[in-house]
Amino acid sequence: MISRRVAFAVLFWLAGCLAAAAQTAVDPLPSWNDGPVKRAIVDFVTRMTTQGGPDFVPVEQRIATFDNDGTLWCEQPYYTQVAFAIDRVKALAPKRPEWKTRQPFKALLEKDMKTLAAAGESGLLQIVAAAHTGVTTDEFSKTVTDWIATARHPRFDRPYTGMVYQPMLELLAWLRANGFKTFIVSGGGVEFMRPWVEKTYGIPPEQVVGSSGVVKFQTSADGKPELMKLPKIEFVDDGPGKPVGINRFIGRRPIFAFGNSDGDLQMLQWTKAGGGARFAGLVHHTDAEREYAYDRQSKIGKLDKALDEATAKGWTVVDMKRDWKVVFPPATR
Amino acid sequence: MISRRVAFAVLFWLAGCLAAAAQTAVDPLPSWNDGPVKRAIVDFVTRMTTQGGPDFVPVEQRIATFDNDGTLWCEQPYYTQVAFAIDRVKALAPKRPEWKTRQPFKALLEKDMKTLAAAGESGLLQIVAAAHTGVTTDEFSKTVTDWIATARHPRFDRPYTGMVYQPMLELLAWLRANGFKTFIVSGGGVEFMRPWVEKTYGIPPEQVVGSSGVVKFQTSADGKPELMKLPKIEFVDDGPGKPVGINRFIGRRPIFAFGNSDGDLQMLQWTKAGGGARFAGLVHHTDAEREYAYDRQSKIGKLDKALDEATAKGWTVVDMKRDWKVVFPPATR
Repeated sequence: MISRRVAFAVLFWLAGCLAAAAQTAVDPLPSWNDGPVKRAIVDFVTRMTTQGGPDFVPVEQRIATFDNDGTLWCEQPYYTQVAFAIDRVKALAPKRPEWKTRQPFKALLEKDMKTLAAAGESGLLQIVAAAHTGVTTDEFSKTVTDWIATARHPRFDRPYTGMVYQPMLELLAWLRANGFKTFIVSGGGVEFMRPWVEKTYGIPPEQVVGSSGVVKFQTSADGKPELMKLPKIEFVDDGPGKPVGINRFIGRRPIFAFGNSDGDLQMLQWTKAGGGARFAGLVHHTDAEREYAYDRQSKIGKLDKALDEATAKGWTVVDMKRDWKVVFPPATR
Repeated sequence: MISRRVAFAVLFWLAGCLAAAAQTAVDPLPSWNDGPVKRAIVDFVTRMTTQGGPDFVPVEQRIATFDNDGTLWCEQPYYTQVAFAIDRVKALAPKRPEWKTRQPFKALLEKDMKTLAAAGESGLLQIVAAAHTGVTTDEFSKTVTDWIATARHPRFDRPYTGMVYQPMLELLAWLRANGFKTFIVSGGGVEFMRPWVEKTYGIPPEQVVGSSGVVKFQTSADGKPELMKLPKIEFVDDGPGKPVGINRFIGRRPIFAFGNSDGDLQMLQWTKAGGGARFAGLVHHTDAEREYAYDRQSKIGKLDKALDEATAKGWTVVDMKRDWKVVFPPATR
């Protein structure tokens, strides 16, 4: 048997060779067009990870946070979680005969879009509450897993997990290869995201921060402990809630953050206000053909104040049409 | 330059040699006496990590949760966070002249222990609130860091970070070496723990679940975003709150959990109720000489119902006096 010291020396030398070979051989962001945005990202990550350089950050402090809807996956023509809630109410309707006469459920079941729209945000919240509560966390997780495996996007006719942005998948993977811990910080429901994010983004459930409802520990009729989802909102992880959520769940300030709407503004401000170099990025949806084009006037993913602040402060703004070679991954079915 | 394929082959072979050498050479839990408890732990971890075995668990599901007070460090004669709160109130007193005449602050400042004790839990909560709020999260973190660097335990006269249990430090490190992600799930304040747990336990801030107060995002007078700690409790991570906290912060059920009191009972029940093999452990404080001896009658860290359930269900109960060769790490100063 060879000595441990010799083995270690050879091991490190080989690891170095392989790492160097890997770095020169492959463009880690092949779906990003060359230009100022790609250069800004590559330059920032290189500076953060260059040992001995002025901007070097130790591995444990490399926290990167990403909004989900509109930043990692498509949020048009409506949030995916709303599509889920609508399908869920339809599926539950046979067991809830009172919905036939009660708004906004009546309108939803009768596809009366005018009445449904008139019910506004409070109507939507009732639908979301009906779809997300009165079940245990385990049951809800299974419902989401089953739904996301079969539901399809209304325009692109592919699974929602295929509506993720290929350039962002590459960015997530490249950040992790550079020692970053990647987190989702989303206004979406944390229990709606956790069942599928690990497979889709490579982000484990414990690195997902999101909105949540109150959950209660109880013992089932047959003596099993369970967590019941109650119809009461606990935390809204949006706007000023995002730095609060980051503080609560992560307990460290990110050095890298990406969003796409005014709901991400405070997360980006909070990130940039830390000491040293910090990266703040926005996805600007400019591609009506390959995805959608929207910003200041949009009801979903409105990008107005954050775009002004990004421009004024020189944050990195992705122009989807200009900066992304492809938007979605190749279709798998 | 050698080919990548050859380099990889040699690399894996060397890594295998080193791993095998490391495993046979060293007892990973040297501060644990041989006996049923050490055997139960080693046996469980070995089964979980034996590829192809009936109890094998993939790395990403190896979640281990530990209570802090009384499980990872000493909680007698009072919780460390209470010692912090008392010192903090004393330090703030010159700026709060009204405390000279207002209970329970008056009693605390005058060392009138009888009146202080009579103020009970509500008095303690007032002291804790005064010590933990009205500052930004950054300021609070600095206060905790400064305090823990200098405060000393009243009986053992060593820093509180030296009042951690050496056998548990070894267990945490060994679990991590076996691919487990280690979390703290404590009734203590999450912002009181995060500034020092990484250095002390090797557990990063984002893997700490605890009780918390409401925090508000705001902009300071000089235009900087900040998070202000408000005097309102948001979440109590104790008893039935522990499975709720695990669900909220981690989003996965642990396969390994350790506590020491009735406040950990629901965490252990929740852990054991998952499918497959699960480990539930309790530290029983039986060593008045080297640490403290207490259980069913104790006001702090009461261990009564959980001890009964552990006995009835065959959970692993550490007898501190019998099972631990040493309690604390060697003194460093």
